[in-house]
Amino acid sequence: VPVTRRALLVGMGAGGLDQVTVEGVAGLRSCTAVVVPDKGEGADADTDDLVRLRAALLERHAPEAVLVTVPDPPRDRSPHTGTSYRDAVDAWHEARARAFRTAIEQAVPDGGTVGFLVWGDPAFYDSTIRVLDRILATGADLVYDVVPGVGAISVLAARHRVVLNTVGSSVTVTTGRRLLTDVAGGADNLVVMLDGGLTCAELDGAAWDIWWGADLGTPDEALVAGRLVDVLPEIEAARAAVRTARGWVMDTYLLRRVGRSSQNG
Amino acid sequence: VPVTRRALLVGMGAGGLDQVTVEGVAGLRSCTAVVVPDKGEGADADTDDLVRLRAALLERHAPEAVLVTVPDPPRDRSPHTGTSYRDAVDAWHEARARAFRTAIEQAVPDGGTVGFLVWGDPAFYDSTIRVLDRILATGADLVYDVVPGVGAISVLAARHRVVLNTVGSSVTVTTGRRLLTDVAGGADNLVVMLDGGLTCAELDGAAWDIWWGADLGTPDEALVAGRLVDVLPEIEAARAAVRTARGWVMDTYLLRRVGRSSQNG
Repeated sequence: VPVTRRALLVGMGAGGLDQVTVEGVAGLRSCTAVVVPDKGEGADADTDDLVRLRAALLERHAPEAVLVTVPDPPRDRSPHTGTSYRDAVDAWHEARARAFRTAIEQAVPDGGTVGFLVWGDPAFYDSTIRVLDRILATGADLVYDVVPGVGAISVLAARHRVVLNTVGSSVTVTTGRRLLTDVAGGADNLVVMLDGGLTCAELDGAAWDIWWGADLGTPDEALVAGRLVDVLPEIEAARAAVRTARGWVMDTYLLRRVGRSSQNG
Repeated sequence: VPVTRRALLVGMGAGGLDQVTVEGVAGLRSCTAVVVPDKGEGADADTDDLVRLRAALLERHAPEAVLVTVPDPPRDRSPHTGTSYRDAVDAWHEARARAFRTAIEQAVPDGGTVGFLVWGDPAFYDSTIRVLDRILATGADLVYDVVPGVGAISVLAARHRVVLNTVGSSVTVTTGRRLLTDVAGGADNLVVMLDGGLTCAELDGAAWDIWWGADLGTPDEALVAGRLVDVLPEIEAARAAVRTARGWVMDTYLLRRVGRSSQNG
């Protein structure tokens, strides 16, 4: 069976236009078209920002690739837990796979390469790999490769000049949704992503140090570090200011229980 | 107090010469000199490889920066546990800080920028940030910034085209030394680095899936994935072959307990 199209998932970094890798740039330049999901009218400010950032990155590094926006299927964001949460995510992935497959077939000729610009690194909390696997499962004549990128976790650590592990110990990468469960299970050195509600405020603030960042890589990037109980008001104020300035706020933070063996990692 | 020197810690990626970011290249081009630790005569093959890789990366992307090799202090690698392990690491960091400070002061003029090429991403299991913090603690007239890079974890995930988290769940990033402790504590989705002895062989092979890689980014890179009990012999053989071909072997792998909610992340 001849393979007629190739997809390239390129991690674009989470810190501006130049955080893409040199191999990522070369990959994008090999693409006829780059597919970008677009929520269209009524999209959130963060989605608009990510579409603009992808367009600017292509203009800067691979101006000959055609940017193809694909209307993104609506996602059920009503409160869910457990199985029903996974079902909602599953339905959204399935709809996205159908939309992407159609877009790929229309945008790229037989033998062509289509790109996907993934914010941060495709390895963490991104659905593009799962969506491509679904497209393959439908029998599409497609292969794909992943070009890794710099994730938000790495940008957070770089900005704070901190090592995420302590000497000889582990790091739990988790979400706001799971944070309290992971802490109850004994995790004491955690990186939290996708926390829409500053869940760390529910922990004992005297027992944790935090290295917090919001809207990393944007001009409105905010950073705060210190003992949680001392800096939580500052974080809340910075978070509100970023939301006002940027129209959206996305937090990433490292939490470490006080008394771990090493201050800086 | 005028700041006389600036250091830039650049994550060089873990997948060849072009996995450095565009901003990393710009940073290296701003450096007068780049310091590379060198174990000298009798060094391990992996150390030699990393020195060669840094030299080749500079030659390719920042040929005007002078590569300065610094004899690396010997490290006590006899078996240690707990406090004495940390003491050994601590002594090595201290000696390295003294050597680096001297090298910086000799290699870079007042007002100059000195680079450090960190394999992978400075955020995970690398000592360069800690060593720079020690140099600052001695009162050196120095500031430093970190340019994040693509870590081995991200390269592993990209090669296997896998998402490290399962939907809505966490990832434990750990070491071979801590793996069994973390699993006993309930971790069921782990990325293991720095495992010199394939510790996963001690787990119940029928209960875990593994996505394994060795010497990622080198021409001898090896990848194996499957149910641990089924693929362990293949991993052991691939590991031995890589060691023979390359002279060293460094494993990175994802372990996921069978029955997690999603096959691919």
